[in-house]
This record gives sequence, structure tokens and C-alpha cells, in this order.
Amino acid sequence: MPDYKAPLRDMRFLIDHVFDFHGHYAALGATDASPDMVSAILEEGAKFCENVLAPLNRPGDEEGCHFDNGVVTTPKGFKEAFAQYVEGGWHGVAADPAYGGQGLPLSLGLMLSEMIGSSNTSWGMYPGLTHGAMSAIHAHGTEEQKNTYLSKLTAGQWTGTMCLTEAHCGTDLGIIKTRAVPLADGSHAITGSKIFISAGEHDMSENIIHLVLAKLPDAPAGTKGISLFIVPKFLAGSGERNAVSCGSIEHKMGIKASATCVLNFDGARGFLIGEANKGLACMFTMMNHARLGTGMQGLCLGEASFQGAIKYANERLQMRSLTGAKAPEKVADPIIVHPDVRRMLLTMKAFNEGNRALTYFTAQLLDTAHLGRDENQRQEAEYLLAFLTPICKAFMTETGLEVTNHGMQVFGGHGFIREWGMEQLVRDCRIAPIYEGTNGIQALDLLGRKVLGSQGKLLRGVTKIVHRFCVANVDHPQLKAYVAQLNELNQQWGELTVKVGMAAMKNPDEVGAAALDYLMYSGYIILAYLWLRMALVAQAQLETGSSEGDYARGKLATCEFYFKRLLPRTAAHRAAVEAGSECLMSLPAQMFAL
Amino acid sequence: MPDYKAPLRDMRFLIDHVFDFHGHYAALGATDASPDMVSAILEEGAKFCENVLAPLNRPGDEEGCHFDNGVVTTPKGFKEAFAQYVEGGWHGVAADPAYGGQGLPLSLGLMLSEMIGSSNTSWGMYPGLTHGAMSAIHAHGTEEQKNTYLSKLTAGQWTGTMCLTEAHCGTDLGIIKTRAVPLADGSHAITGSKIFISAGEHDMSENIIHLVLAKLPDAPAGTKGISLFIVPKFLAGSGERNAVSCGSIEHKMGIKASATCVLNFDGARGFLIGEANKGLACMFTMMNHARLGTGMQGLCLGEASFQGAIKYANERLQMRSLTGAKAPEKVADPIIVHPDVRRMLLTMKAFNEGNRALTYFTAQLLDTAHLGRDENQRQEAEYLLAFLTPICKAFMTETGLEVTNHGMQVFGGHGFIREWGMEQLVRDCRIAPIYEGTNGIQALDLLGRKVLGSQGKLLRGVTKIVHRFCVANVDHPQLKAYVAQLNELNQQWGELTVKVGMAAMKNPDEVGAAALDYLMYSGYIILAYLWLRMALVAQAQLETGSSEGDYARGKLATCEFYFKRLLPRTAAHRAAVEAGSECLMSLPAQMFAL
Repeated sequence: MPDYKAPLRDMRFLIDHVFDFHGHYAALGATDASPDMVSAILEEGAKFCENVLAPLNRPGDEEGCHFDNGVVTTPKGFKEAFAQYVEGGWHGVAADPAYGGQGLPLSLGLMLSEMIGSSNTSWGMYPGLTHGAMSAIHAHGTEEQKNTYLSKLTAGQWTGTMCLTEAHCGTDLGIIKTRAVPLADGSHAITGSKIFISAGEHDMSENIIHLVLAKLPDAPAGTKGISLFIVPKFLAGSGERNAVSCGSIEHKMGIKASATCVLNFDGARGFLIGEANKGLACMFTMMNHARLGTGMQGLCLGEASFQGAIKYANERLQMRSLTGAKAPEKVADPIIVHPDVRRMLLTMKAFNEGNRALTYFTAQLLDTAHLGRDENQRQEAEYLLAFLTPICKAFMTETGLEVTNHGMQVFGGHGFIREWGMEQLVRDCRIAPIYEGTNGIQALDLLGRKVLGSQGKLLRGVTKIVHRFCVANVDHPQLKAYVAQLNELNQQWGELTVKVGMAAMKNPDEVGAAALDYLMYSGYIILAYLWLRMALVAQAQLETGSSEGDYARGKLATCEFYFKRLLPRTAAHRAAVEAGSECLMSLPAQMFAL
Repeated sequence: MPDYKAPLRDMRFLIDHVFDFHGHYAALGATDASPDMVSAILEEGAKFCENVLAPLNRPGDEEGCHFDNGVVTTPKGFKEAFAQYVEGGWHGVAADPAYGGQGLPLSLGLMLSEMIGSSNTSWGMYPGLTHGAMSAIHAHGTEEQKNTYLSKLTAGQWTGTMCLTEAHCGTDLGIIKTRAVPLADGSHAITGSKIFISAGEHDMSENIIHLVLAKLPDAPAGTKGISLFIVPKFLAGSGERNAVSCGSIEHKMGIKASATCVLNFDGARGFLIGEANKGLACMFTMMNHARLGTGMQGLCLGEASFQGAIKYANERLQMRSLTGAKAPEKVADPIIVHPDVRRMLLTMKAFNEGNRALTYFTAQLLDTAHLGRDENQRQEAEYLLAFLTPICKAFMTETGLEVTNHGMQVFGGHGFIREWGMEQLVRDCRIAPIYEGTNGIQALDLLGRKVLGSQGKLLRGVTKIVHRFCVANVDHPQLKAYVAQLNELNQQWGELTVKVGMAAMKNPDEVGAAALDYLMYSGYIILAYLWLRMALVAQAQLETGSSEGDYARGKLATCEFYFKRLLPRTAAHRAAVEAGSECLMSLPAQMFAL
């Protein structure tokens, strides 16, 4: 496994310069998130991730989780690491102080999450799911429910899950079969079987609090008849074992140390949370956050892969540079001299740093949506978040998969061998485009619900920001060519959207036909905007003779690479969008394979 | 695992109609390859692959190979399947009759290989490597060597390997350390350690014949000082155990049932094959064939993945079509109604069928290069082969990886679960862009050695064919728009090449900077040409009211999809080529990560 070092320098570049998080926190009144506190969290968090989590990553993949008659054991060291994490107070960094959390902004929690995900994605699933459950209870629980569950969850004494999927439905939750029958005491008897439940059963915590989607007896059909229930493994208070059991764990391609469980509910006692039949809406409250977290897995694993690849490319000696030996004293040149190796490395660097900027940009909006001082400000942040979230989820996981594949390719044959750790990153990353809503679903959400559903309003919120940025920098001495390129794409983006919107009014299949390519196209443009924002800062640093000069040169070179070699992919995505639905829909289903 | 059914209908479409293999064989005097023989081989081969090999594929992945103190055991059933394969005469289909082969054209062997690779890629490595060794001995061995080894290898009594890579070098064979010291009897003592040796040790055959690259004591430095040796596990004649042993097997991401061995040569007796210091050239003789075989793994696994995905997409019920329920009697519509699912399926279909056409096109050239009646014909085929081989290897494996990933995505969460078999196809495919020369190396070979090295002559050989095709079909009533699109790209291809060539004269790094994107760009154009050839046939079939009408409709729809949604990717690759080397080379190596 490549050693992991938290990319604190890049994180600080974004925090201190590009996005001015200190000003951001101050403006939101998040006074606890002082520069010293931010530094402490980054540095101590980095140590924990580098020293405790990262060393467990390869062994965790090899060992996997164990299932024995309903009991799930996590790989060696996982449980202890969780105890250490909880003890260090990490679990409650962004949680409500009313229940023992530190109450720091969500964005700080996400910065920490990146380091966790890079060092050990599987392990990160356990606290990650718990945070999801905490959000749902916090947002929709009664006072009593919050008091009962949140303190223990925040303390990491208990952990949580989200139980949505069943064998016959993942995307289509309207057809779930799990049933909730009212009991005399106001609770419900939950019966059904859920699959793909991450952290559904394990040995890390005393109790597991499942959030379960189920249907009441009189529920309307479809998604409007789904309710959400709290179903604890052990009932709070009495400690009685509830009728929920783990039937098996899945054998997967990756994230093998994350227990993916079949959970059987056999009349288990559950407690309605939120309104009856409004369960899906409750789940969606926390979806923005969870989807951003899943998108970040592309960044996390991409970063880990880059760290391995850059080290290897500097050490591995193979062939001479075509322009003459660069290390004549050695048997061959380090492979980083070869342009094609650099193409892969720069692609990785451009996506990782671009995706990190996208994460921080979005994380600030998440803070503002929660803590913004007035309704307008919060609402505006919500709109931008609604637009950006599916892009974060899908674009960052698609590109993360590309990045981890490049990292493996840099290693040549060794990349395919497990002990080097590079192939695990590909396998671990491969689930991210699938779960938490497939990328195809994200794309429909973006184009159908968000963009066209708002008559373009949500898109205009973003293109306006990009447009203003371009206007402000149109004459930038070094970067104006890129500003012009971005500005042109930004206009084209609006035009393309109108075109799709017009077509979709005649034929709803136009949305599905365009969606994925539209999402990727949008992602490339947003990353271009963020790369230029980084380049502006870097250019200024260079000119002021900052001590960060070398770092700034890296930023500028990577920005140039991005604009010249990656951004032109928009042309292919645009053409695919413009191709329309007919070339997808004309062939009868039975003629696909004869 | 998805059931495998050999795609005989598509194979016959190419054999009978698009490429007229019967006329091709007749023209080459390959009279044994009669239509009846071709049919028999396809049908019986299909049965063997479907019934014997395919059922061993998932269990083989789970079990993997076993290593115990130098002894390697293949998964349950592998040995027996190999015996059955040998007994059925499959091993010698394309081998020289002088040594017990059936002497059928290489192209027929490749058609069989596709079916083997789709049903069980790992298993296919064992006969595949043996065929490589047979080619080398056939091309470069003395009469005595041929007599000693070829009959047993053809009979499958013995198997073979190719031992090139060492721990410190894969691509850069000039720096190998394995040494060959002459012995009194004219043989050599071989000492060194080789890694990544597929089929290096196993339990399928009585003996294993290793072809080993090593350096003689007085050898010149670099690639001009490499010699090739035959190093049998058991010496022919005496049967004495040679000093070669398997030190370990690798734990890999995929092709787990293929034994990837470390082989230690401790003064093992070896026999020079070919001229001293010309070993690399000997290896390269068979490279065209081997690289085409590796490229085909992209097709093989892509085909298997498509078969799984199309079945699942027709059966899995999830959500309703946006244009209204298509299966109102069911709880939801089959997911093939959704445009985004069709986008994935059609991408898979377009690449698979296009890559199959590319394979058959190239296989005919391989036949002609071997059996052509006059030197000119053979030479022309060799030129085209030289150009197409790196494209087959790299383009087909890159797109094969994309295809297997789409197949997995169609399955949603189930795609990530091992028992469904879809993720294995991704893992098995992931090695193909790496081994047998990484795709980066293929790209350098194409652009540097083949295209620019021939002053564009090899490219013109191809663009001329495409140009003639476009001229002949410029007025085609249904397809002329695509003909025009292809013609324009074909011209652009030449212009782009001139541009890169000019830049490369000033700076050799321009070649490396452009290579991979140039290769992909070229691959998309060649596939467009082949898709149009298929579409012409399909259109004619539709018009004559052939019984293949439905099949022809599928071809035409997929051709349309290819031109509208995949071919535009050339724009992104062209832009990357035109971006030049500066944006790759300007950043000092130490500034990639600070």
C-alpha cells in the first residue's frame, strides 16, 4: 500500500486562499472554527488517519469481514481504531453540542472525511453511516427520540445504518415490500428483508440503530406511501434484543472490510420517525450530505492512488527519455520523464485537486445552508447545493475511477498485484458510481429535476457566478485565454440546456438520453471554473514572491494541462447530448441480442 | 456468472458477408478451411466453450491457483478441461501439420480464441502461452529443435511460456540481468529470476518449455545483447529435472486462475534459439500475434459482459419509462426501457461488434501475411498488420475495460457482488491494457515506429483503403451522411499526423505526448470504417428481404449510435494530440507533489 500523507498543503491552499474559510466561518458566526481549531483538526486528524487508519487498509482488504451465525466481526484492528477515533472526539466534530458534539461546521467534518476516506475507505463507512443516521434523527426525530439516540450515537457508543434497498428494488423504492404494522403501544412491528446494508452488523459498538424504510398497512402505493422507522438492535432502556438479525454478508469486488449485510426484520419493534408516508422525504434530507460524501470517495481514493503513483514514477527506472538520458548515472531514467506517464499523473492531479476544490466549494454551501444568517442566503445556498450535489456524486466518482485506473497503469504489471495496493483503490472506488443513487440516477436528478424542473433557474444560479468571474478576469494578463475558453463554454452550457429542454417538452426520453453526458459536461465546466480560481491565486502568489512559489507553479501547470487536455472532452459530451434520444430508443428491446 | 453463448450469428455475419472468409481462404489456397470445416469448428468450439470452460470460470476465480513448495495446482476442473481440449484436437487447429497440427489458417484459431476468452480468460492463458512458444520455435528453431519440441507442444502434452520480465524491468528489456553461460556441450547455463510468467508452473502438462530472454557473457549492452533460450522444465530425452523452479505465484486483481509465476533459473540448461544477441527480434516475430490475442481479451470479456447485461436489463424491473409504463402488468418496467441503460448497452454492443470486426479484418491480414501467394501481397498485409496491431491491442483493451464497467453498472449494486460474475469481468479485463506491452508502449509503437518511422507510409496504406471506400459509397442513399463524416475524419487523420510529425522533428517528446490519444483517435476512425462496412451489408440485407432482417436492423441502429455518440470522442482526442508536449513537460518532476 502506498503510504498516505494527508495533503495538508493543498487543503490549506484552498482553506486559506481560494475559499477563505476563515472569513466564511466568521461570517457565519462559527466562532469555534477558529484558524487554530482548523489547524488542530487538520493536523491531529492527519496523524490519526496516517498512523492508525492507513496501516489497516491493506490487511482489512485481505482479511475482509467474517460472518458466523449472525455475528459479524470486522478485520483485525478495526474495532480498536474505532474506539480510538471515538475517544479522540473525532466522531462528534460536526455534531450538535446539545448531544455531546463539538458543533463545528459540516465543512470541517468533510475535510476530516477526506483524510479518513483516503487512508481507509472501508473503515470510514462505519462512522459515515452513523453520521447519516444522526442527521436523519436530528432533522426529523421528536425531542424524545433525539434524547434517546443522539448522545449515544455522537459518542460512538452506538452506531447507525440506513436501510433502504431490498433484493428487488434499489432505485425504485416505491415498490419496497417491508411492512410496518402498528402495535398497541404506538410502536410498529417491522417485517421484511433489506440488502446492501453497510455497517448493518459488526463488532464496533454496543448497539446499532437502523433507520428503515417500510410501508404502513394503509399506505398509498409508490413512493408516497413509504415511512421511516427507527429500529434499534437492542431496544433503548430495556436493552432487550430486537427481532432484527443479519442473514449474511456480501462477497464484493472491493470495500471488503465494510460489512455489507442482509438484514432480516421479523416483527422487530420500530418507531416512526417523521410523518407517516413521508419517509422518503426524510431520507432525502440527508441525501445531499451523503451524496457529497460518496462523491468524495472518488477524491479520496484518487488522492491515495496519486500518492502511490507519483512516488513510483519518481523511483521506477525504465527506458531513457526520448530527448536524451535524464539520469545518465542510473541504469535507466525514472519513468516520470516519459510524456505518457506525465499525461496520466497530470490527469490524476488535475482531477484530484479539481475535485477537492469542488468539495470545498460545495462544503461551504452546505455550511451556509445550515448556518446562513438570513433566509435568502440559506435559500441561495440550497439552490446551488441542489444543483451541485448530483455533480459531486457522479462526476467525482467517474473521474475518481479514471484516476485510480491511471494510478494502477503507472505501476505497469505491479499495479495488478495485490500487495502493491494500487488495484485495491480501483476496486474500492468501483462501488462509488453505483451506490447512494447510481450515476445515471444522479444525472436524471440533475437534468430532469434540478435544471429542467426549475425551468433553468438552478443552472442560471451557477452560470451567473461563472459569468461574473469571467467578466472580472477577462483581461487577466496570464490567464485571459482560459477565461475566454471558460466564458464560451459557459454560454454554450446555457444554449445546450435550452436545446435539451425544448426537445424534452416533446419527448421525455430526451432527458434520460442526454442526462449522463450532460452531467459530465457540466462537471468539466465547473472544474474549469474552479481550476481558474486556483490559478488566479497561484499566479498572485508567484508574483508576490510567496514562499509557496513552487506549489503555485504546480497549480498553474496543472491548470494549463486541464484546459488543454481534459476540458476538450466537453466536445464529445456535448455531441452525445445533441445526438438526442432517437438513436437510443429506436431499436426494439428484443433486437439488442439475437 | 452470466451464461455464455458463443455469438455465432455475429461471427457468421462477418465471415459470410462482411469479409467473405470463404473467398479469402480459397484465394489463399487454404482449401482445408472449407465452409463446412469453418462451421464445424465454430459450432463444436462453441459447445466446448459454453459447456466445459464457461462453468469453470466463476469457481476458478474464487479458488485461484494454489502454490505449495514450488508446486502449482490449478483450480478444480482446469486440468481435465485442458485434457478434453487437447483430445478434441483444438490445441492444434492452426498449427503446422508437420508436427501434428491441423494447419488451418490463423484466423480460424482466433475465432476459436474469442470463444475461449469469453468463456474463461484465465484458462485460455495456458494454451495461449503455449501457442506463443510454438510460434517462436517454429519461426526460429533449428530442425532439431522443432522436431524435439513442436509435436509435443502441438499435442498439448507439453506447454510453453515466454519469460521476459524481471522485477526491475518489464518494458525496458535491455536491462535484464538473467545470464547465459556457455557450457562445453554447446548448451548454456541460465541463471536469473523472471517474474510475471503466465503458466510458468502448473499441473496441466507433463513438461513446460520456457522461452527465456538472457544475456551472453560477451553481449553488447541494451536490447542488442539479448538472446533467446529454450529452457525445458524436464530435459527432452533424458527427462532430467532442470534447475528451474517456481518461487511463488502472484496474488492478483483478476485472472486469478491463471498462474502468474516467479521462476528462478539456477544454472538451468538452456538451448539458444535463433541467433545470439537477436533474441528480442525473435520474440517480436510472434508479438503481432500475441498482441492481437491480448487485444481480443477486451472483446472477449466485453462480449461476456454484454450477454450478462442484456439479459439483466430485460429482466430487472425498476421504475417506469418516462414516456409511460411499458409493462403495466408488472410492478415496474424492465430497465431496458430507460434511455441511460440503453446508452450503456449500445456502447457495449457498438464496441464489441466493432472490435470483433477489427479482429476479423486483422486476422485476414495475418492469414495473408503467412499464406499470401506473392511477396507483394504478403508485404502489403504485413504493413497493414504492423499498423493495426498496436491499435488492436490498446484500443480493444481500453474499450473492453469501458464495456465491462458498463456491464457492471447495468447491474447496479448487484454488479459489485461477486456471485453475479460481472465484476470478475472487469477485474479479468484490467490486466489487458497492461501486459504484452502497456497501452502507452503500444501507442509509442504506433505513432513513433510505425507511422512516423515509415514517414507516414503505413498510415497512408490505411487511409487509402478508407478513402476508396468513401469514394465508392459517397452517394449511398441511406448511409451517405456517415460516409461523409468518415471521409472528413480520414482526411483530418492525415493532417493531424503531419502536424505531429512536424512537431516531433523539433522535439521527440511530442511523440510520447501525442501517442495514446493519437492511438485512440485512430481506433475510433477505423471502427467507424468497419461499422460502415457492416452497415452496408445490413442495409443490403434489409432491402433484399433477407431472413436476417431483424439482425440487420440491429446493425444499422448500432452503427447510427456509434457515429452519433461514440465517434465524436475523436474531437477530444484530437484536441489532446494538438495540445502538444509543453503542458506535460514543463513542470519539474519534484513539483508534482509538494
